[in-house]
Parts: sequence; C-alpha cells; structure tokens
Amino acid sequence: MALVTYSQLINVFKQILSDSGFSQSEAELCAKIFADSTADGYHSHGINRFPVFIKTITDGYVKLGVQPERELALGSFERWNGKLGAGPLNADFSIKRAIELAKEFGMGCVALQNGSHWMRGGTYGWQAAEAGCIALCFTNTSPNMPTWGAKEANTGNNPLIVAVPKEEGHIVLDMSLSQFSYGKMENLAMNGKELPFPGGYNTDGELSSNPQAILDSKRLLPTGYWKGSGLSILVDLLVTLLSSGKSTAKIGEMEAEYGLSQVFICFDAKQMNSDNKHKELVDEIINHVTSAMPEKEGGTIEYPGSQTRKRRAQHMKDGIVVNDDVWNKLLARI
Amino acid sequence: MALVTYSQLINVFKQILSDSGFSQSEAELCAKIFADSTADGYHSHGINRFPVFIKTITDGYVKLGVQPERELALGSFERWNGKLGAGPLNADFSIKRAIELAKEFGMGCVALQNGSHWMRGGTYGWQAAEAGCIALCFTNTSPNMPTWGAKEANTGNNPLIVAVPKEEGHIVLDMSLSQFSYGKMENLAMNGKELPFPGGYNTDGELSSNPQAILDSKRLLPTGYWKGSGLSILVDLLVTLLSSGKSTAKIGEMEAEYGLSQVFICFDAKQMNSDNKHKELVDEIINHVTSAMPEKEGGTIEYPGSQTRKRRAQHMKDGIVVNDDVWNKLLARI
Repeated sequence: MALVTYSQLINVFKQILSDSGFSQSEAELCAKIFADSTADGYHSHGINRFPVFIKTITDGYVKLGVQPERELALGSFERWNGKLGAGPLNADFSIKRAIELAKEFGMGCVALQNGSHWMRGGTYGWQAAEAGCIALCFTNTSPNMPTWGAKEANTGNNPLIVAVPKEEGHIVLDMSLSQFSYGKMENLAMNGKELPFPGGYNTDGELSSNPQAILDSKRLLPTGYWKGSGLSILVDLLVTLLSSGKSTAKIGEMEAEYGLSQVFICFDAKQMNSDNKHKELVDEIINHVTSAMPEKEGGTIEYPGSQTRKRRAQHMKDGIVVNDDVWNKLLARI
Repeated sequence: MALVTYSQLINVFKQILSDSGFSQSEAELCAKIFADSTADGYHSHGINRFPVFIKTITDGYVKLGVQPERELALGSFERWNGKLGAGPLNADFSIKRAIELAKEFGMGCVALQNGSHWMRGGTYGWQAAEAGCIALCFTNTSPNMPTWGAKEANTGNNPLIVAVPKEEGHIVLDMSLSQFSYGKMENLAMNGKELPFPGGYNTDGELSSNPQAILDSKRLLPTGYWKGSGLSILVDLLVTLLSSGKSTAKIGEMEAEYGLSQVFICFDAKQMNSDNKHKELVDEIINHVTSAMPEKEGGTIEYPGSQTRKRRAQHMKDGIVVNDDVWNKLLARI
C-alpha cells in the first residue's frame, strides 16, 4: 500500500494522459475525474481502472481528437453521437448539455450513442447535483451478467445513477445491476477478501461469495435476483432506443467494451422548487431515514452519498491509500 | 377457488364502484384496471386489493368527484395536483397527459402530488407502450421497509415501472424495491406458501422465507440489500421533489396510505425512431437475452412482460381462477 495525495494523483494522471495524446484541457478533465473517484474511495473505477482506460486508447478502440455531434434535437431532448471518443469526456459533455437543457426547459435529456465506458457513473450524478439538478443517468455495458434463468452472460450490469442536490452535501446513488460490481469484486479479489453475501455462481454452478470464483465463471447474480435481471434488460432497451446506439448484444460482438449507449436526464431543481418547499422536503426525507432505530445498537443509518462525502473529506486531509503495485507502475510511466 | 370470466369481473367491479359513488365512466375505467390486473395474474393488486380500495373511499381518505389541477407547466414538464382522488383515476390521467406531452415535445413528464395508491403500476406501463411510448414511472408508498442498517420501516418499497413498445407484445417491467412486494407476500401467506428466497426478518430478527412472519415484523429485505434500499430513498426524493408532494415520511404520519407522489416520464417512440432502426434494435436485444443457454436444461429465458402476456391470453380463453372467499364477498355486495 502507498499513501498519496490528491494533487499527486492529478499530476501523475495528467502526465500519462498528455503522453497518450490527450489535449491539455482533456487531460486535466480526465485526471480530475480519475482522482475524484479515487479520493471518494472508488479505486476500482479510479486509479485501478486508469491503466485499462489508457489501454483502450493505445489499442485504438477509443478515439482522441473527436467531438460529439448532434443527431437529433427535439427541444428538451437531444441525441448526440460520441464518435467513440473517451468515455469520461463524452459523458462529461452529455451531462453538461443535459444540465443546459434543464436550465432552459425545466427538464432536459441527452441520449448518447457511441460513447465509451464512463468509468464511475457517480461522477455525473455529483456533477449534476452540484449544478443544481436532479438527475437520472443510465448506461449499458458489454454482456457481463446472466439474466435470471440464463447460464451465460446475456445482459449487462447496466449501472444507473440518481442524484439530488442538498445544501449540506448531495445525495447520489450509483449502482450497477449486478449484486456486486466487477470493480468491487476485482478490488476484493486483489486484496484476497470475500464478498459479504453470495454474489454469483462458481464454475461448478454453486452460489459463491468468492469474488475470484465469480469473476472466473462470469455468472454474477443480478441485484435482487430476477428484479435486477429485468431492470438490466430495460436499461439496455432505454439507452439503446433513445440513443439509437449499440445494444449490449452488439457491444458483445466487438473485441472490446466501447461505443456504449447512455442517457442523461436532468431536472432544474430551481424551477422544480417553484413553491420553495424543497429544502424542507429533502430534510424531512433524510431525517426520517437516518433517525430510524438502527439494526445494531449504536449503529448509524446512511443514505447514498453520505459515506462518500466522509471518505472524500478524510482523504483530502490525510491522503489516499492506494495499491502500491498499481501506483508504482503508473510512476514508472512518467 | 372459483373460476370467473373477465367480463364477470368487469361487471361485478363496475357495479360495486357505481354503488360506491363512482360516475359511469370512472367506474368503467377502474373496473377495467382491476380486471386487467387480475387477468394478468396480479391478484394482489387486482381482485384481492379491490375491497381495500373501496374501503379507502368509504373511509373518506380517497375523494370522489375531484379533478386533477395543473400546478406548474414548463413545456414538456407539468406538475398536477391529484386532489386526493382515486389512485387509478389520477394515474390514468397522468400517464395520458405524459403521453400527450411526449407526442408534442418528443419527451414529456407529469409529476403528480396528492395522488393515491395507483394499484398495479404496470397498468400505466402497458398503457404507455400501447400508445407508442417508452415510459418510466415511479411512486412512493407509506413507510413499509427498513433501509439497510435500520430496524424499523423508514422508507417505502417505492415501485418503478419501465415500458418499451414492441409490435408482438410490449416489454413492461413492474417492480417494487422490496425483494418481495407486500401484495406477493399477502398472496402467498393467504395460500399458505413460502417465499423462494429469504424476503425479510421475522420478529426475532432472523432472516426468513415465511411471508406471514415478515408481514408481522414489517422488516422486509430491500431488493438487493443496500442497493434497493438506496434506490428507494432516491425514488422517494425524486417523486416528492418533482411533484412537491408528500414524502414517504409524511405519508407515514397519516392514518392511511393516500396522497402519494408519482412521476410519469414518456418518450414518443416514433420521434425517437428517427432513423428507423428501433424494430431491429429491440429484436436484437430480446433475441440476445432469450437465446442464451438456460440455467436448467430445457428451460426458457423470459423477459419483463413475456409471462404476463402468456397469462393474459390463457385467462381470457380459459377464465381466471380467483380466491373464492374474496369472490363470494364481492358477490354478496351486489
């Protein structure tokens, strides 16, 4: 394990991105996204994913120097073609455009075809909330999860994000539709840990809590069995049809995971707050949730985003513990 | 058990609704909604729920003779006040208005405050798909589920619906955010059956598959543990803020479950299909899902809506088996 600072992360990421052909502003944006995810504790979609991200560029799947092009404009709804550009750049562009549309029309939706892996989806939820928007974001992925009743991966774990702005710190849910994300399982497997609940099947077809056994079989359990299974199919349909882009099935036919379909829906919280009741309503909901009797004596009840904010504050102050092997390999590149 | 026909159900429901003060057109619409849910196999939100629905009227919580009023209009987004009218009438009004907005603007959203329990949420998904819309619908409920780490019910199981039109039969997901819905558990408990997986805790705090034990403790497991827990909080925030209506916390302070907050988002599939690729894309996704290797030899892989359509066709042909106690009590009222 190595202890690094946020600004060290930024500098190392930025240098490698520049060396890989990113423009100055693109490198700064991507470095910030990867450093933020790491500082927030999502190493699997931050520092640990960074080398994989760079490889999709050097392998030529993800393109540099492309700009999204608008394919369809219907007032509050727009469809954009990401031209296979870098996932975080395309997603950053899309959420910013959805925020603009929401500010103009009250509600805005951007559907993106030919995006790429957006890394940590929560990034765009925090961004929308920070801009004063309530947001819903969806992406598909390559086929990485069997639907309920299937033995082989025939759908994606298609993450969804829901974000709500709150003065004292935003409320952001970022969940994939497998019970555990690939990133989480890879992270635990790398550290030799078990899952807290069965997360899929081993290669013998038995339910297992061993992350490596599940990574080997590729038989992840959907979130809530048949429920996450059904929702993953509908998320794939939603993002593919609204973007007229690639489905999970189509992505699975390619040599790598790129060209994904994504949807970003924003509501301008200011216009939605026409009767000035929102602060009271948000406090009412969060207080009701957190003031319930905890399952374990002395326990606290968290809500989406509350733990992320605590981790972020701590890591900005005390530094971030990262895997030293991953960190040393990055240092060796600059 | 009693075997009834769809038109018998319609006639009995309509008669009781008329006797309870519903206008002719309102009685026809509600009777159809309850009969359709029963024919589709959702007795818990169809025939078995009907007496409870009527009681909310006779108890005076749900109002007759009210019309929704528009509170806010921002082009493709509108907020309506349901004035505590009957849930299915308010939800039917709202999805129809969201469909109209989608036809006009490409995308439309109706947020409803002071709705009531919409009964089976899938109703409005099938309706939107039949009208050629891709739809996302959300509702909150009374507090009926503990969030992850809580011992007492501090959130709702807040159902969500996603619907996609398909020529040969629509794709409709209707899921609550508890691993099992109250309706499902009540239905199994009524028939003395167990849940296929643990669905919550018994009054001793142990995980249980006994529906009655979980109904007694009110400690339902969220869909996918912490994931459904987080999503339920965000659905409550989403519907409450967009409608500026009652939160799950507020609903829990009242003597009964009414005045709910709901959101209906529609996309006009025709305008979204500007490049005429949708049929191909939908087929591609569904074929990929259903042609995977089944977990059990000879098994089939289903997708949301496929089994509902089969049940509906069978029940329209052969009649519908209903609980005879429930049926006889309804017959005794007319």
